[in-house]
Amino acid sequence: MAEGLHRVVIVGAGFGGLEAVNHLKGAPVEITVIDQRNHHIFQPLLYQVATASLATSEIAWPIRQLMRGRPEVTTLLAEVVGVDQEARQVRLRDGASVPYDTLLLATGARHAYFGHDEWEPYAPGLKTIEDATTIRRRILMAFEEAEMETDPKAQDALLTFVIVGAGPTGVELAGTIAELARDTLPPDFRNIDTHKARVVLIEAGPRVLAGYPEDLTDYTKRSLEELGVEVELGAAVTECTAQGVVYGGKTLAARTIVWAAGVRASPAAEWLGVPADRNGRIIIQPDLTIPGHPEIFAIGDTVTLPGLNGKPVPGIAPAAKQAGIYVARAIRGRLEGGAAPGPFQYRHQGSLAQIGKRKAIIDFGWIKLRGAIAWWIWGIAHIYFLIGVRTRLSVALNWLWIHARNQRSARLITQGSDNESESSGGRTTS
Amino acid sequence: MAEGLHRVVIVGAGFGGLEAVNHLKGAPVEITVIDQRNHHIFQPLLYQVATASLATSEIAWPIRQLMRGRPEVTTLLAEVVGVDQEARQVRLRDGASVPYDTLLLATGARHAYFGHDEWEPYAPGLKTIEDATTIRRRILMAFEEAEMETDPKAQDALLTFVIVGAGPTGVELAGTIAELARDTLPPDFRNIDTHKARVVLIEAGPRVLAGYPEDLTDYTKRSLEELGVEVELGAAVTECTAQGVVYGGKTLAARTIVWAAGVRASPAAEWLGVPADRNGRIIIQPDLTIPGHPEIFAIGDTVTLPGLNGKPVPGIAPAAKQAGIYVARAIRGRLEGGAAPGPFQYRHQGSLAQIGKRKAIIDFGWIKLRGAIAWWIWGIAHIYFLIGVRTRLSVALNWLWIHARNQRSARLITQGSDNESESSGGRTTS
Repeated sequence: MAEGLHRVVIVGAGFGGLEAVNHLKGAPVEITVIDQRNHHIFQPLLYQVATASLATSEIAWPIRQLMRGRPEVTTLLAEVVGVDQEARQVRLRDGASVPYDTLLLATGARHAYFGHDEWEPYAPGLKTIEDATTIRRRILMAFEEAEMETDPKAQDALLTFVIVGAGPTGVELAGTIAELARDTLPPDFRNIDTHKARVVLIEAGPRVLAGYPEDLTDYTKRSLEELGVEVELGAAVTECTAQGVVYGGKTLAARTIVWAAGVRASPAAEWLGVPADRNGRIIIQPDLTIPGHPEIFAIGDTVTLPGLNGKPVPGIAPAAKQAGIYVARAIRGRLEGGAAPGPFQYRHQGSLAQIGKRKAIIDFGWIKLRGAIAWWIWGIAHIYFLIGVRTRLSVALNWLWIHARNQRSARLITQGSDNESESSGGRTTS
Repeated sequence: MAEGLHRVVIVGAGFGGLEAVNHLKGAPVEITVIDQRNHHIFQPLLYQVATASLATSEIAWPIRQLMRGRPEVTTLLAEVVGVDQEARQVRLRDGASVPYDTLLLATGARHAYFGHDEWEPYAPGLKTIEDATTIRRRILMAFEEAEMETDPKAQDALLTFVIVGAGPTGVELAGTIAELARDTLPPDFRNIDTHKARVVLIEAGPRVLAGYPEDLTDYTKRSLEELGVEVELGAAVTECTAQGVVYGGKTLAARTIVWAAGVRASPAAEWLGVPADRNGRIIIQPDLTIPGHPEIFAIGDTVTLPGLNGKPVPGIAPAAKQAGIYVARAIRGRLEGGAAPGPFQYRHQGSLAQIGKRKAIIDFGWIKLRGAIAWWIWGIAHIYFLIGVRTRLSVALNWLWIHARNQRSARLITQGSDNESESSGGRTTS
């Protein structure tokens, strides 16, 4: 690499970080991408790994491979533990430091338990590949154990699946687990009737998919109920244990609980010592820098920013990508000596969520869609946004098999005991 | 299930066990298949998971799903810990028992360290999906750490990959790791030149692929060397540590060691209290039953049996399958009151091994093939023996991408620290 080039360090190779790299192509910079994992994840389909529909390698790509055509980009598999703003260096876990001229923190978020971290062993969340294989193992093992169980009460608890939180991830998980139990598994078991599995979606708020228009959320609730999902609204979970959950004063025996209720930002705000909201997100300036440090940008799920009409910019992939593009352009502009850009403006292109096979909802603002047509658009859009032709073919092939034959290919129970995976799943994203 | 049917219990859903189930279709029996894992593995391609070429779900299928059209078959995910031959019951880890009229033990083998089990943490073997993802993680992590390492000596050790044992698995691993380093990884790293990675294949015997004709093994050695593999013959490994290996009096610093040198049978011989060879394999009678117990069969890698010309039946998939078919026919024959079958006769159909891209060897006995033509036959044969159309398409797609674009899709570093996976990988197969 040439000496003296402007050094951009990007921490986090999620949607925001990678989009910034992409839009810095050709700029007079040298870039270092640091991530705690060797792979970029297509988060919107992570629930399909957790429900045995897709293989891990279909929604994850080695970061280095994505940087293959970019000799000016160096990829480091390392954990960031701090930022030295005076020396302009990022500090790594192993003691090394990486100097920067411009820093972009795109470090994301992890699930959070609202002060009840003791619930995590019983109610894993879904943010990493390891989270997804942990949840997949738990779901599949529950059916296996139920098949062997002779006590009807214990069997009922094994066949009860609780999802906490009815945002998009919770809705998609609930719908897919219900289909797994109703469509995929019945012919495979001899002692249990997997149709009788209960899938209970618990939401503290008054509606599922709170951000969507009311007619679409009503449709979503009805569709989930048609799939056999029990939707419990206005009921906060007050306890998670190995035996089950307590919500709205009721106790429900359940061996499998998945947490889709809250997130907590990465510790980027602590690294910088800047103000954060109650979820740990940096309260970022309109130009996506932190106060007094125009050379430090932060984007994505680790920041909060008011969007249009006072509603905060949502924590979704398109928002992170737009912010990544904005930052790349801002860096280019500074190097070219142009005027400072105006404030970042998020453009909402639409919201979409899958409920089940051939059922989805889409809100483009100017038009609302639901049912099979929305599902086709959902599927095509997701395949379009995957990386690479092989992955697209492979995911399309898997979906075809699920829909034509109800076979889910990734029904593998792997890894050791839960304790092992918990310790790997419990890391924060860097 | 109907009462009073003859109860066949099959322990182990590898090639032998599954083939027995397949050939008992329509027989007046009820079958219980017990396996410690929920999936059947296509072992001959496990090294491709370990080298990031294939995803786990492409070579593994849920056992239950394979039994979908067989209502008389019950699948149990359970660990067998013993056999009560008097009561005719299989004892499970959780205390339960499963009664049988006929028992088939097809419990396989695991890798073994010739009395040096302390080497396992440094030199994992390759028998399970977890083994494969452990090895994959170690290989990929070695390149990642080398990229960050500044000490040249430590970097050399990180870029040295040792494979112990030059049987088919050892040869295939060595060839594929060399290709990974030479063809797939170079454009992805900035600080290291992955061409310089050393792949060292160490074999105690005088030849690679000892069972093959000499001209093919010579060709294999030459081909490996052309790929950059260093082949060390007649050199026994006398030490494995975190620093490397000692072999033939020489010390080689290497951070990644893979063990492909020896196997040890499952504890089936101990369960039965019958004579075993030094690798723990049951010395089985010619009709594949144990002495004094015609109702107990054992097949596959957990037994040893003289074949033609005094050479033992090889521990390969076709031999296990033929034995499974033999047992199924023997059970059918007994239930129909026919004559006892003659002794099991293994028919060797051929041996084949891949060395690298477009290079393989095949020995059909009547004809020997090598090079590109052998590689095509190898590829087609392996795709043919996979289960299901989706898997075949998916594997073909991946191989196409590797060969056309040198991209290996499954380059994912997953799971936590090595300690975690070791404890899960260290189980014996049931």
